[in-house]
Amino acid sequence: MWMALDLARRGQGRTSPNPVVGAVLVKDGEVVGTGYHQNAGGPHAEIFALEEAGNRARGATLYVNLEPCVHYGKTPPCVDAIIKAGVKKVVIATEDPNPEVRGKGIKKLRENGIRVKTGVLEEKALRLNEVFFKYIQTGMPFITVKAAMTLDGKIATSTGESRWITGEKARKYVHKLRYYADGIVVGIRTVLADDPLLTVRLEGYERKGPKRIVVDSKASLPLNARVITASDPTDTILATTEKAPLEKRKALAEKGVEVLVLPEKNDRVDLKALMKALGERKMSNILVEGGGTLNYALLEENLVDKLYIFIAPLLIGGAKAQTPLAGEGIKSIKDARIVREIELKQFDGDLLLIGYPEKRGDQNIHRYYRGTGDSVVRAIS
Amino acid sequence: MWMALDLARRGQGRTSPNPVVGAVLVKDGEVVGTGYHQNAGGPHAEIFALEEAGNRARGATLYVNLEPCVHYGKTPPCVDAIIKAGVKKVVIATEDPNPEVRGKGIKKLRENGIRVKTGVLEEKALRLNEVFFKYIQTGMPFITVKAAMTLDGKIATSTGESRWITGEKARKYVHKLRYYADGIVVGIRTVLADDPLLTVRLEGYERKGPKRIVVDSKASLPLNARVITASDPTDTILATTEKAPLEKRKALAEKGVEVLVLPEKNDRVDLKALMKALGERKMSNILVEGGGTLNYALLEENLVDKLYIFIAPLLIGGAKAQTPLAGEGIKSIKDARIVREIELKQFDGDLLLIGYPEKRGDQNIHRYYRGTGDSVVRAIS
Repeated sequence: MWMALDLARRGQGRTSPNPVVGAVLVKDGEVVGTGYHQNAGGPHAEIFALEEAGNRARGATLYVNLEPCVHYGKTPPCVDAIIKAGVKKVVIATEDPNPEVRGKGIKKLRENGIRVKTGVLEEKALRLNEVFFKYIQTGMPFITVKAAMTLDGKIATSTGESRWITGEKARKYVHKLRYYADGIVVGIRTVLADDPLLTVRLEGYERKGPKRIVVDSKASLPLNARVITASDPTDTILATTEKAPLEKRKALAEKGVEVLVLPEKNDRVDLKALMKALGERKMSNILVEGGGTLNYALLEENLVDKLYIFIAPLLIGGAKAQTPLAGEGIKSIKDARIVREIELKQFDGDLLLIGYPEKRGDQNIHRYYRGTGDSVVRAIS
Repeated sequence: MWMALDLARRGQGRTSPNPVVGAVLVKDGEVVGTGYHQNAGGPHAEIFALEEAGNRARGATLYVNLEPCVHYGKTPPCVDAIIKAGVKKVVIATEDPNPEVRGKGIKKLRENGIRVKTGVLEEKALRLNEVFFKYIQTGMPFITVKAAMTLDGKIATSTGESRWITGEKARKYVHKLRYYADGIVVGIRTVLADDPLLTVRLEGYERKGPKRIVVDSKASLPLNARVITASDPTDTILATTEKAPLEKRKALAEKGVEVLVLPEKNDRVDLKALMKALGERKMSNILVEGGGTLNYALLEENLVDKLYIFIAPLLIGGAKAQTPLAGEGIKSIKDARIVREIELKQFDGDLLLIGYPEKRGDQNIHRYYRGTGDSVVRAIS
């Protein structure tokens, strides 16, 4: 199953909105076929593995990280191919998350005399397809917030300067995150302060898009902002409200920008409505590169699924310098959100902490959860 | 020499204001004597090693991390004992930092036909006695700033709550830092907000003191603050200015508190004058547990030698929540202070980053310095 998960990983960034899937066929202790889902619309992992194995698939065991499909989509159902090939046993990490088809593939395999085992390395498999699982079950994108701060917790100096807090290697890694994203969300303040390009600029990771979404309740976005002029303006979405002047909306639309008028919440764009709209546009993986105000509003709305915090070995100070999470703030430490399953990476002198902030309501469940192994979760007493 | 350094470390926290020293005598590839300086006033490391070796010291090689002393202090000079014992060769990590005696021990050894090699693991040896080396050369204490922040860079919530950001293990480690310190410096705001005890409360690390120094230009310290009432008030120093009302000074002095009236700088206690005064009181190792304002003022004054930043896996947000370094702040990233030689520790879910912030004026030297090995120094381009 480890091998299947590794194979699946090779498809990362190319299968959206499909999951990544890897398959390994083993016969008499020998690998006779492997495959992974290479791109949306293309053949599934199981088919590649079966084709490679040919006649040797008969009597073999198939390891696959997701329940094989039983329905006709863009490709015929894998379950039929598995049965036809004479596979003896199927080992599955996770069931199909789609409630309407969950278990149906497993049922059909069993009805045809194939032994089925599920739940092997399930947690790893769930994490591997965390984006897909959230999106398919809720219609909402999986939301990752990225921030780069100094060792004293600042994402910009007191004068607003933020270039560059992290070093080159860390910034290259951010371009990889962008590469895997369907959309990048920023606040209008970030655009006004930094005039960013929000494109993927990394050798070997060239791609069109991702979509650039500017959260801007009053449509203050200048027509000459680089998110409009420096690359395809139809990749830019302005998330705004009825407060935005009609002429400005029209001018932006004429440039090719999609103007998305959303409900208000607390005088600002309703972020839940925004994310729902992005999900409806088939964006399953959203990267937020906003300032502290947007980041905190997302946390407040329980919308942050994953957090990437870079920490540079720099000190800048400043009582008024921005931090990764601003807003009103949580008043009491006992109500702080724990970040779970923290993973640590290093890029030259910069550190990166990756983790999953608990959602409100989950708190009671996780408050006393203690991590094991390489997890650095901590309970608060 | 590694062994000598390890032995030296055993004396940590008990030799102040002396350095920690370890000595190893080797003869024919065999260790025949070891020793370390156990406490101020007690015998030096070399003497323990020579005593253990007895006759076997004749013709042996002595490894010691600091140049053996040549002058009479509380104990007779080690150089004479080494010569008398018939040691053949002496390997030294660092010369005596005291300019008046530096090299004199080495010279006398050589004049008596003993081979001397210096500079072995010198950098490690300098770090090991970093407190002693700074103090003996400048008369100023070695100053360590400690802060505990959330993953979003806050040392307290927007309402000022800071208990407890880190978990129990991290807090125990702070008590170890206190144990090794001669004095703990805090700002009056921290005392007013938290009313801390500032004592060492850790099993196996019981000790009187350290001194508690409250930086308080107007002598706002309440007479019933726990730094006065909860343990020996004569361990408390109020660092204040002429602005402090005379009656309040008198009332504090009557409680046993030392009232230290210092010059002003920028309307506040002159921190350099304070540290000089603490150095004159034989305090070589100062731990600062202040808020962001005090920490930043110390950084500005080039007074921060070492930094301990704990990072808890918590998010609290808050544009007005305090961060480890407040004040005016550095305006431009290119002027940021790099923290060098960062070391990482983990206490359950909390991380600890230990490093050395560059001083202003050192910046040009270190700006392009790149670390090697486990150092995570980064240059800014």
